[in-house]
Amino acid sequence: MKQVVTFGEIMLRLSPPLHQRLSQAGSLDVTYGGGEANVAAALVHLGLPAAHVGCFPDNAVGEAAVQHFRSHGVDMSHCVFRGQRLGLYFLEVGAALRASRIVYDRYESAFAHLQPEWFAWDQILQNAQWLHWTGITPAVSASAAEAARQAIAAARRLGLTVSADVNYRRNLWQYGQRAQDVMPALVAGCDLVVCTEGDAEDLFGIRPEEGAENSFVSMSEQLMQRFPTIKQVIATRRQTQSASHERIKGIAYAEGRYHETDFFDINPVVDRIGGGDSFLSGFIYAQLSGRPLPDALGFATAASALKHTIAGDINLVSAAEVDHILAGNTFGRLLR
Amino acid sequence: MKQVVTFGEIMLRLSPPLHQRLSQAGSLDVTYGGGEANVAAALVHLGLPAAHVGCFPDNAVGEAAVQHFRSHGVDMSHCVFRGQRLGLYFLEVGAALRASRIVYDRYESAFAHLQPEWFAWDQILQNAQWLHWTGITPAVSASAAEAARQAIAAARRLGLTVSADVNYRRNLWQYGQRAQDVMPALVAGCDLVVCTEGDAEDLFGIRPEEGAENSFVSMSEQLMQRFPTIKQVIATRRQTQSASHERIKGIAYAEGRYHETDFFDINPVVDRIGGGDSFLSGFIYAQLSGRPLPDALGFATAASALKHTIAGDINLVSAAEVDHILAGNTFGRLLR
Amino acid sequence: MKQVVTFGEIMLRLSPPLHQRLSQAGSLDVTYGGGEANVAAALVHLGLPAAHVGCFPDNAVGEAAVQHFRSHGVDMSHCVFRGQRLGLYFLEVGAALRASRIVYDRYESAFAHLQPEWFAWDQILQNAQWLHWTGITPAVSASAAEAARQAIAAARRLGLTVSADVNYRRNLWQYGQRAQDVMPALVAGCDLVVCTEGDAEDLFGIRPEEGAENSFVSMSEQLMQRFPTIKQVIATRRQTQSASHERIKGIAYAEGRYHETDFFDINPVVDRIGGGDSFLSGFIYAQLSGRPLPDALGFATAASALKHTIAGDINLVSAAEVDHILAGNTFGRLLR
Amino acid sequence: MKQVVTFGEIMLRLSPPLHQRLSQAGSLDVTYGGGEANVAAALVHLGLPAAHVGCFPDNAVGEAAVQHFRSHGVDMSHCVFRGQRLGLYFLEVGAALRASRIVYDRYESAFAHLQPEWFAWDQILQNAQWLHWTGITPAVSASAAEAARQAIAAARRLGLTVSADVNYRRNLWQYGQRAQDVMPALVAGCDLVVCTEGDAEDLFGIRPEEGAENSFVSMSEQLMQRFPTIKQVIATRRQTQSASHERIKGIAYAEGRYHETDFFDINPVVDRIGGGDSFLSGFIYAQLSGRPLPDALGFATAASALKHTIAGDINLVSAAEVDHILAGNTFGRLLR
Amino acid sequence: MKQVVTFGEIMLRLSPPLHQRLSQAGSLDVTYGGGEANVAAALVHLGLPAAHVGCFPDNAVGEAAVQHFRSHGVDMSHCVFRGQRLGLYFLEVGAALRASRIVYDRYESAFAHLQPEWFAWDQILQNAQWLHWTGITPAVSASAAEAARQAIAAARRLGLTVSADVNYRRNLWQYGQRAQDVMPALVAGCDLVVCTEGDAEDLFGIRPEEGAENSFVSMSEQLMQRFPTIKQVIATRRQTQSASHERIKGIAYAEGRYHETDFFDINPVVDRIGGGDSFLSGFIYAQLSGRPLPDALGFATAASALKHTIAGDINLVSAAEVDHILAGNTFGRLLR
Amino acid sequence: MKQVVTFGEIMLRLSPPLHQRLSQAGSLDVTYGGGEANVAAALVHLGLPAAHVGCFPDNAVGEAAVQHFRSHGVDMSHCVFRGQRLGLYFLEVGAALRASRIVYDRYESAFAHLQPEWFAWDQILQNAQWLHWTGITPAVSASAAEAARQAIAAARRLGLTVSADVNYRRNLWQYGQRAQDVMPALVAGCDLVVCTEGDAEDLFGIRPEEGAENSFVSMSEQLMQRFPTIKQVIATRRQTQSASHERIKGIAYAEGRYHETDFFDINPVVDRIGGGDSFLSGFIYAQLSGRPLPDALGFATAASALKHTIAGDINLVSAAEVDHILAGNTFGRLLR
Repeated sequence: MKQVVTFGEIMLRLSPPLHQRLSQAGSLDVTYGGGEANVAAALVHLGLPAAHVGCFPDNAVGEAAVQHFRSHGVDMSHCVFRGQRLGLYFLEVGAALRASRIVYDRYESAFAHLQPEWFAWDQILQNAQWLHWTGITPAVSASAAEAARQAIAAARRLGLTVSADVNYRRNLWQYGQRAQDVMPALVAGCDLVVCTEGDAEDLFGIRPEEGAENSFVSMSEQLMQRFPTIKQVIATRRQTQSASHERIKGIAYAEGRYHETDFFDINPVVDRIGGGDSFLSGFIYAQLSGRPLPDALGFATAASALKHTIAGDINLVSAAEVDHILAGNTFGRLLR
Repeated sequence: MKQVVTFGEIMLRLSPPLHQRLSQAGSLDVTYGGGEANVAAALVHLGLPAAHVGCFPDNAVGEAAVQHFRSHGVDMSHCVFRGQRLGLYFLEVGAALRASRIVYDRYESAFAHLQPEWFAWDQILQNAQWLHWTGITPAVSASAAEAARQAIAAARRLGLTVSADVNYRRNLWQYGQRAQDVMPALVAGCDLVVCTEGDAEDLFGIRPEEGAENSFVSMSEQLMQRFPTIKQVIATRRQTQSASHERIKGIAYAEGRYHETDFFDINPVVDRIGGGDSFLSGFIYAQLSGRPLPDALGFATAASALKHTIAGDINLVSAAEVDHILAGNTFGRLLR
Repeated sequence: MKQVVTFGEIMLRLSPPLHQRLSQAGSLDVTYGGGEANVAAALVHLGLPAAHVGCFPDNAVGEAAVQHFRSHGVDMSHCVFRGQRLGLYFLEVGAALRASRIVYDRYESAFAHLQPEWFAWDQILQNAQWLHWTGITPAVSASAAEAARQAIAAARRLGLTVSADVNYRRNLWQYGQRAQDVMPALVAGCDLVVCTEGDAEDLFGIRPEEGAENSFVSMSEQLMQRFPTIKQVIATRRQTQSASHERIKGIAYAEGRYHETDFFDINPVVDRIGGGDSFLSGFIYAQLSGRPLPDALGFATAASALKHTIAGDINLVSAAEVDHILAGNTFGRLLR
Repeated sequence: MKQVVTFGEIMLRLSPPLHQRLSQAGSLDVTYGGGEANVAAALVHLGLPAAHVGCFPDNAVGEAAVQHFRSHGVDMSHCVFRGQRLGLYFLEVGAALRASRIVYDRYESAFAHLQPEWFAWDQILQNAQWLHWTGITPAVSASAAEAARQAIAAARRLGLTVSADVNYRRNLWQYGQRAQDVMPALVAGCDLVVCTEGDAEDLFGIRPEEGAENSFVSMSEQLMQRFPTIKQVIATRRQTQSASHERIKGIAYAEGRYHETDFFDINPVVDRIGGGDSFLSGFIYAQLSGRPLPDALGFATAASALKHTIAGDINLVSAAEVDHILAGNTFGRLLR
Repeated sequence: MKQVVTFGEIMLRLSPPLHQRLSQAGSLDVTYGGGEANVAAALVHLGLPAAHVGCFPDNAVGEAAVQHFRSHGVDMSHCVFRGQRLGLYFLEVGAALRASRIVYDRYESAFAHLQPEWFAWDQILQNAQWLHWTGITPAVSASAAEAARQAIAAARRLGLTVSADVNYRRNLWQYGQRAQDVMPALVAGCDLVVCTEGDAEDLFGIRPEEGAENSFVSMSEQLMQRFPTIKQVIATRRQTQSASHERIKGIAYAEGRYHETDFFDINPVVDRIGGGDSFLSGFIYAQLSGRPLPDALGFATAASALKHTIAGDINLVSAAEVDHILAGNTFGRLLR
Repeated sequence: MKQVVTFGEIMLRLSPPLHQRLSQAGSLDVTYGGGEANVAAALVHLGLPAAHVGCFPDNAVGEAAVQHFRSHGVDMSHCVFRGQRLGLYFLEVGAALRASRIVYDRYESAFAHLQPEWFAWDQILQNAQWLHWTGITPAVSASAAEAARQAIAAARRLGLTVSADVNYRRNLWQYGQRAQDVMPALVAGCDLVVCTEGDAEDLFGIRPEEGAENSFVSMSEQLMQRFPTIKQVIATRRQTQSASHERIKGIAYAEGRYHETDFFDINPVVDRIGGGDSFLSGFIYAQLSGRPLPDALGFATAASALKHTIAGDINLVSAAEVDHILAGNTFGRLLR
């Protein structure tokens, strides 16, 4: 089967254990993750071949990051080892009313300094059926944005499906260009996007029509008008009760119709990092498995709900486990 | 005071810490347990002398298992050290909507290969007042079933009370005989059984009468008719909210009357393995302490609720602690 | 800015990890705390200078306790190193319906054996604006009670504000004097007290008037009449759902008016030790920052709620983090 | 087989892991031990039945201590639960040239406050063949010394063998009597003592004769003359290279002859606490197994050497493992 | 570059941490390894592509084992998921004079129950240049021996180099055939063998000629005569000082000449499991890199020495790191 | 007493536990250190007041670093909180012949970006008697070099003693200036330097005279001639046996005389980071305590030897502990 290929930065994540604050920690739990690579790894666990493309420092830290994703079965053979450092972040895991908090330290990462010409996309994508990227990649540096542009162009040329999580983070855009100037050209190459009303307004100036019955539908329609290749817009709605208790549902707009799932209740949350990535990987898996959109949306949302119970960025669940949840087994009865 | 004696297999339990999946675990938490020995250990903590009878490989793993139960004050002097290996299982502890999951690896265990003649029951039981076994023992092998048969026969001969948790697990019966053929003769020697409607149907073909007001009562009456030595049938009802949130109550039928407790709410669940064993050990303790059945049922259920908050298989609580809960102190106020 | 000075015992706290019972623990988590020093440390984290005065054995354990508080920026330069041992306690952390349990081992501590003349209060307090003590100090020994008396006298002489958490614990008073005889003279030197109706009855024989609309108001009024220096009485109300789920609100009576906050919901509780200390430190901070009483009460309660999510005795939060909660951000949304 | 009975204090031992200093430790490793109980536990592992007699606070800490020794198969049924606290000590484990360091906190322990009449020695010893005590017990309190006196008297009356590790620790004797006044009457009831030249001089004023060829022989002869029941004097010689590297040999004097073993080299030392206790338990085991003195001395020394490689106070080795070392297998070849 | 392919069983390894005995362990460190797969993984770290072929239970344990080796970059795509359980063993890590000890529990493993026809060797080896197996594989079961035979036959047919570590372990051969009957036919297909004088005598009845100057040379010459395809015989000599201190050198016989390296001193040993596998993987790497035999032998021995300092079965070192040692940098100077 | 003030960068240090390689680590041990601040912290433990001056990002990581040194009693009140990130490094701890390895990630640290005008040296040093810096500070950035220059100038102006560890690390100098151009002007302000022959040649082109009897003396004499303020040159000699076994001695040249100590043997090494810093802090302490140079050199070397047995960067020992070693107690006898 052909691969799903993801492109983006992978970072070292360092977390104090057991809800400690950073100043209390005598050790930090280690994992590696990235919004794009997490999708690739989750897809492998669901049962699809996937490759991730990135750039790493040629040292023990970069090697450990690559090894981590290789252990999940992701094809890392197109990754480049050049540059000084792996971006990293510190995650304080909150509890109850205390929010989790991230301190980023991703300055001057190897990924931000990549050169677009290091990636021969036609070759990388020759065995692929799908390309996935996120709005974080073009935010990191001009060269990363250019590499994303070339990847998307190659994907379209080769007939791949292209998806994006537009994921606008204002603080990230610091290399001199504005998201509003960079993103449209990239989104213009997508078939499927994860996008909320907030993202649409911030990035594209698209606001739901006043009085629209369903703001998501209104936004999605405008987005599709602006970017005619887009066929599906999906997102999650969260009813965050506390740092320890989350409720999510999935929503989608496609072919003129709006879909939504019931809410899934997650209490306690074990790890909420990667919740969005698992939603998208579930959706990609379900679509490539030929499931109709409402089923795919349910599968994606159940997958994301499960992810919240798993430590680390990556959704370590099989398709059977997601289907088990979808079949209504959300009560955690012991499986022998 | 005379002992309660239990007979059954003890296994090594290996669990990834902190809700990890097995593939994430750099170490596995270790404990030892078994549905019968857990009852013996809990009884000692409640204040009654208890002995456990089993069979272990004569190596460091078998020795560690025995030492574990000896630390809880269980008399392990009747255990036999012969055979190749200790059965074991891997327990992934779920969270929220992700169920806990057990992977068994109990093939060819020392217990399964025991020879009935290794156990001189008349001598083992000479200082005992109660024998407890479960439906797991006869499921493991023909020789284990035969040993159970001999133990029950000796117990009756010596005038002991005999209890069983019938606990039907279809997957376990793999040595060529059917539970339906083996269990009746064993249950026929019991005074008290833990049995649900499902167990009764699977094992004895007993179905609650159509239109029965109370299916448990209907089942219990038929069971007592079939097996006249049985004087009490008890069970727990669970309202499992999630892998992290359990609600339980106790039910009983005896002397023509049905009893039930209120629900106990357990959120979060620390460890649900051994919940049933702690129910039964609480019931045995309360009966041997002369408490009337409704009180014994309440004690058993409170003990089981407490067990869900304690790591490992064994209910490490004193009778005073159970009574503290029974007195309505379920709100966890700090005890100084 | 002038210091807040606290006076009291610091103990070594030893806790089995992960809800284990003491007999299960292969290691014990270590921290150090005391009802007064916790206030000092929390104040430093909020942004005020604070000093703690105590007495420690001149050995590695005493040194470690002092170092712990020094790491939080507390001025420990007035502490005395004399005596045999540091008091300590074992804390079993409960879960759900199983209460947390403390086993004290504070006999013959260095603090209990302090000599009042070791503390030159006029010098210690010369750079201070506030003195805080609790009802635990005079309970420990006659000499500790006398030292507290001298500290309060010096504070009044120097014009400091004096606060106390009266905190009556019957079991502690074992050196031959009764709390009812010792406490009034000390409380008579206070401007602000934390005191519940139960404390007032036990210590001062004050009972809310029959039929009083608000028992706290009735008690406070009588208390202020008895001890005219007292201008403010504050307390928390707890709706303890379980060992894992707490609800708290703050109440206050001052200048003839009663105030209360909404309830804060804390689920799960990470560590409830020090919840009262964080309430008071929040209140002191807010008052010294010039916030009006209702705001100060809200700040104190939000600070205490946050404390329940933080491991250890000390409230490791900044004023900005408390204000973030006060502004309604109690849903734990991830902070990037 | 008849029991070996030991009498003495058991303490909680708290150690920073991995050579940390106390001020660095976020957790402390927990074990329980005592110079007499360690002998009992080691004997059980070697294959002899043993009981320990002591006094413990009736709380979770005392219970945990008893449970620890019960797990090793020691009969703890004669232990008394009365008093306030379990004595404890902090052990910083050194490395290389940094020595390990103990901070004691054994003031006012339950054991020190025991009453001699709590122990019915004739009954306790009725099933015993050997009584073992150490010089630490009479050092702790007058009542402990008296209880030891009664135990020894009963043992002699009943014809048991009595052994002692005289183990003089000056700092311990703080209750108003001098070791020199108390110990002789106790040692006068012994058949076998562990005693070095230093102990003999400090306790009994016995000095090797000037110019004696072998100071140990000279001391032993005088000791036997003074205390005619003593038939054997044994000790270890240490060539301590560093906190991580120990060399030991065993020496003995009996029936007019001196014996010594070769040195055993232990590098690295895993845990040197209990090294002497394991020597003595090895000797007792070997004697009761009928081995001649030189063999018993070798067995004792090899047992002690092995102990240095095992974490905790107790020598967790079988007799076969000691014999394996004695047969020359000191090179650590992997055993499959 | 073409792959090195290894064939053999992978087991779960469970070790008490920090030199604990099994009965002390509250958790067990987890890793996965096998004498053949360890070679494949080490080769990938050295820089060569490698694949491993094995058989695993289709459950979470089997999946974790495969994932472990995938993380090291080993091609696991030819592995089969059928059978009941993963073989496992418990490893107590000794220290100083206490030997490390293994308790095997590999009964009825998925690998032992493999069917030869599940492996299409011509296809598996089509992209390979080298096949490696060990004497453990044919010891496990008749079907594993047959699969090994077919693999070797295919390798020879396809012109691959074939190597074996003959590794005779008497206890393993329990399925009814004798090593002496099975091994010759397999060894007859090898170009390179690891074989000691002991192995040669046990397996092939080959004894060094009386009075031979060099017993290894004498044995090797006879071995080559018996099995003419064998061109090189290599082995390590160990001077085991203790469980913590190892000395090794490499020896080889080829083209009529004997070679040996100096001894490498390893003190302390971090983990000695896999020492032989790392020797062989170093040798294969060096040979495939075109190094002459004496250099290859040095490289292999230095690689093995380094392995002893690395936790787990697999030699996590690069070729540059081995060469750094070979260049004389054995003094552990800090690398910045 | 007046302070010793140090100026330099503090970094986060992340180490895999138990000799793991970075790719194996599921968690990383955390500490904070810097060649200058380590001197300040060690001095406080020895008994002298010390302050450290540095620059930290205004986030939780910077706060944790400052808190760490505050816990050791270092006055951190002159530190500045500005900039993006805390420099960090990964430390793989080797064993035996495998060297420890550092991967630096200190790019664009807050310290490197400091502005000299942020530090009012005359005020910072007004209560100081000694200023210490190292060659790492001017290597980091031009502004850090300028700040060091200003600090040294102020120190000389105020009559402080100035010391430096010249510590040349070629790789660090990457901001466009050469160490050879920058360092001389800074060293010209020093009274005491740690400098080896290699440093002297690399930094100042000073080579021992051909045929010099003692190369260190020859180098020192030339250094003093070039920089007339320098009165003492000191260094350590290492005989590194392996990553686990170190031997060190101290050497010094002053007032025309050469001094050296005996070698101290450290086996095993617990943590060698900070070995040089502890040497210098020992020397400063001894000098300020009025000890003559040979004694000071012995004290410094013994302090450094002890440091190798302590985890983390900082030498957590008292002066009494160093003197205990100096008195010949290097055999690690247990201290009770």
